[in-house]
Amino acid sequence: MTTLDRTVNVKEQAKKAQVASKSLSLLTTEEKNEALLIIADELEKETEFILNENKKDLDRGTEKGFTEAFMDRLRLTEERVKDFANGLREVAELEDPVGEVISDWNLDNGMQVEQVRVPLGVIGMIYEARPNVTVDATGLALKSGNAIVLKGGSNALNSNKGIVRVIHEALPKTKIPAEAVQLIATTDREATSQLFTMKDHIDVLIPRGGGALINTVVNNATVPVLETGVGNCHIYFDETAQPEKAIDILINAKTDRPAVCNAVETLIVHTKWLEENKDLLEKSLADNNIKVHGDDHIVNTFKEAVPADEDDWSNEYLGLEIAIKTVNNTQEAIDHIETYGTKHSEAIITEDAKSASLFRNLVDAAAVYHNASTRFTDGSALGFGAEIGISTQKLHARGPMGLPALTTIKYCMTGTGQIR
Amino acid sequence: MTTLDRTVNVKEQAKKAQVASKSLSLLTTEEKNEALLIIADELEKETEFILNENKKDLDRGTEKGFTEAFMDRLRLTEERVKDFANGLREVAELEDPVGEVISDWNLDNGMQVEQVRVPLGVIGMIYEARPNVTVDATGLALKSGNAIVLKGGSNALNSNKGIVRVIHEALPKTKIPAEAVQLIATTDREATSQLFTMKDHIDVLIPRGGGALINTVVNNATVPVLETGVGNCHIYFDETAQPEKAIDILINAKTDRPAVCNAVETLIVHTKWLEENKDLLEKSLADNNIKVHGDDHIVNTFKEAVPADEDDWSNEYLGLEIAIKTVNNTQEAIDHIETYGTKHSEAIITEDAKSASLFRNLVDAAAVYHNASTRFTDGSALGFGAEIGISTQKLHARGPMGLPALTTIKYCMTGTGQIR
Repeated sequence: MTTLDRTVNVKEQAKKAQVASKSLSLLTTEEKNEALLIIADELEKETEFILNENKKDLDRGTEKGFTEAFMDRLRLTEERVKDFANGLREVAELEDPVGEVISDWNLDNGMQVEQVRVPLGVIGMIYEARPNVTVDATGLALKSGNAIVLKGGSNALNSNKGIVRVIHEALPKTKIPAEAVQLIATTDREATSQLFTMKDHIDVLIPRGGGALINTVVNNATVPVLETGVGNCHIYFDETAQPEKAIDILINAKTDRPAVCNAVETLIVHTKWLEENKDLLEKSLADNNIKVHGDDHIVNTFKEAVPADEDDWSNEYLGLEIAIKTVNNTQEAIDHIETYGTKHSEAIITEDAKSASLFRNLVDAAAVYHNASTRFTDGSALGFGAEIGISTQKLHARGPMGLPALTTIKYCMTGTGQIR
Repeated sequence: MTTLDRTVNVKEQAKKAQVASKSLSLLTTEEKNEALLIIADELEKETEFILNENKKDLDRGTEKGFTEAFMDRLRLTEERVKDFANGLREVAELEDPVGEVISDWNLDNGMQVEQVRVPLGVIGMIYEARPNVTVDATGLALKSGNAIVLKGGSNALNSNKGIVRVIHEALPKTKIPAEAVQLIATTDREATSQLFTMKDHIDVLIPRGGGALINTVVNNATVPVLETGVGNCHIYFDETAQPEKAIDILINAKTDRPAVCNAVETLIVHTKWLEENKDLLEKSLADNNIKVHGDDHIVNTFKEAVPADEDDWSNEYLGLEIAIKTVNNTQEAIDHIETYGTKHSEAIITEDAKSASLFRNLVDAAAVYHNASTRFTDGSALGFGAEIGISTQKLHARGPMGLPALTTIKYCMTGTGQIR
């Protein structure tokens, strides 16, 4: 679609969100928590309505012949509705970052300086056809005192409209203005583009989804972007890697949830380690049905390996496949990661402290592991509670982003007439 | 100029900076401090050379008929060289943010998590014809473990080349690789544009200068930008503002350094306060040669006032002029700031705690003042030491940016084979 859907007015919606964000920013933690619990109850109560709306999207998806993986992300069930309602209840339990005085001091002239944590204002969330993100993102935004403008994937439009309708029916029973939650309810792509440049009304854009979506937002937005996570993650078996430990970590990072961003995509292996452990590695991969794309050395060593090309080194498989690269030392492993990594999660398995330290210091990534699985790069695994995404950029927030990532600071100065 | 200057290869320079940033990131605080002191000495020793190079720019500027204000920013003197050399010595005294363990904890499974402060990597600095920025930015970048790519204003090209030549002669006497400091030595605008999208080699762009420069970078860059400060700052005299205190603050904020971003540009005044204090205000402005652009009410009240238009409300005067807007309550003042402010520094002068609190909570700016001058929004005034600029954006850093704004975090995990 290229013509503008005139039933939506993106700018008006963003402005309304901005106005609502002002009163929302003044609410107490208790008022926000109570609102989240009311929304959670309402969503559960309206499960049938939500599932009916979701069914419209599913039927359309079946007609269009979407993949089962796609349909699975789109599909809501009674249990999934309960899950996201419970997610809101968990967010209500989290510590409220807003109002925290991060530091305070007095100047010599007596002027008091306070560095206070405040909401960002309006968050623009751009995501794919995953209706649960509608609820998760709204919960995190509201808890951190922010209004939210939601633009979900077109193929989940009915589901998102249903969910937001329920949220809008719940909000008047709370202190949060209903206009704090805005859904851009159109399949018109032009509407998304309008969000990219709405600097006067939107404080941050958070794209969540595949690489193509994220790149479109990063390349076109003048609104600041919190880039979230494509994870082309590596595990490096150093010469001294303890074989069983190494294999356990590899298989866990590859098979526990192959479709997530902290799953491993490339194994880098020291040639000496490989020489001594090739049978163990080959058997473990085969036992777990993991297809191997390897460099020349690997193709010559493993019967079932196929040759890897640039794509294999660069892209996520998000399934039971792995690329394997051989190296002669830690620096070569670091260089490979520098070339192909996405600055997400990188691991070294070694018993050598010097290699571990080199890897830790020189690998440029949100999370660097020594002798542990890359799967721990995750807000709930690290104890942050729910996360809005995993940042692979370096500014503002890096790694799993919890509630503080949705805030900024304000300097509040109190004087008695101080001049300079 | 629109054709590409083939004597420079921006991408090669950015790549070299990136390579250099790796070894730079491993240096100790002492090694970095020693390097800064050596550079400072060398700059002072080469004062004559630097002034000669600067003279080429000044002569060209005179020929081209640049304004005196422009020439003043461009001009170096023996004292100014001493000043920026001393600036480097002060940066050497500042605390090194790199390596700080911001927090650390163990998961239940025993995996250790450390959140460590690390350099951003490569900083791209885009600025106007102010040669001192070349030294200041380089000092802050190196101290925080970052390489820097400098693109200064074309009219200061000879000065910048001279300064960077001296720095490059000093660096081999230090542990810092000379390639960590790169000057894009061309007047070709295309070279600047190339920096905008060099995401693979530059971690952050910092534009420093006027609104036009900043907007060009923000609108065209895909590299993350740290937006620095256009300051259309307001002071609001509430109904209960103590007259002498209010006037002192206003005159200080307007006249102390009218050309800087934390100077006040618009006075908002409560009609009741104005009624009682109009003579005092009119006389104080006249005594300080401040030209008044006012709304209808002001034009009817003050003999010398001229009518203000949209431009007066929106733009910085950066000189001895002020816009004056009358309002009937604090909310109207807040609304005016919301419409025209640039989220820099905003002040309320009042003896009423409720008004002060409303203003503090609802005004969306890096710094909000109660009964003090806006002039304190400044790294050195607040005790941060040297600053790389004043951020008027909300992500990553807000307000005066010291060394920590040039760092990011890295999660360093240490395990014994933990899997999920």
